[in-house]
Amino acid sequence: MYLVKIYVTYKPSILDPKGESIKAALHRMDYSQVENVTMGKYFELQLAADTKDVDAVVKALCDQLLVNVNMETYRYEIEEVEMA
Amino acid sequence: MYLVKIYVTYKPSILDPKGESIKAALHRMDYSQVENVTMGKYFELQLAADTKDVDAVVKALCDQLLVNVNMETYRYEIEEVEMA
Repeated sequence: MYLVKIYVTYKPSILDPKGESIKAALHRMDYSQVENVTMGKYFELQLAADTKDVDAVVKALCDQLLVNVNMETYRYEIEEVEMA
Repeated sequence: MYLVKIYVTYKPSILDPKGESIKAALHRMDYSQVENVTMGKYFELQLAADTKDVDAVVKALCDQLLVNVNMETYRYEIEEVEMA
C-alpha cells in the first residue's frame, strides 16, 4: 500500500485571511513570538499496492480535485508501506 | 527564526465525513486505487529566533487554539532557519 501525504497552502501572492486571524488571536493570547501563520489543507491518502505510476496519479488527483491550482500550491510525500 | 509545521487530523475513532466524500468523488473520477482519504489542517508558523522552549510554546498554542483536542490529534516538526 502507498501512503501519500499532501500539503496544500495558498500561493504567496494570495492573502491568507485565516492565517492572519489566527496570528491576531495568538497575539491576544500573549504569544507575541509568533511572527507569521499560514493555514492550509492536509490530506493522507492510501493507494492500492498495485497502483501504477503513483507520482502521476497523485499529481492528477491533486490538479483535478484536491487543489485549487489558481490560488493554491501543493507538495506531497509518497511512502510505500508493507501491510502487516 | 523557527519554522514550525503542524499536522492536525481527526482521531481514528472520529468519523471523517470530508475524507469519505472526497474518496467517493475520486472513485467517481475512476481513481479506484484510492483506498482511504483523510483530510486535516496544516499550519506553518514562524516563531521569533529568541523564542524560549519552542516545544512547550508549540504544544501550548496547539492545545489552546489550533487543535480541538477532543476530536483531533496533531504532530509537528520544528526547524531552526537562518534568516538571510
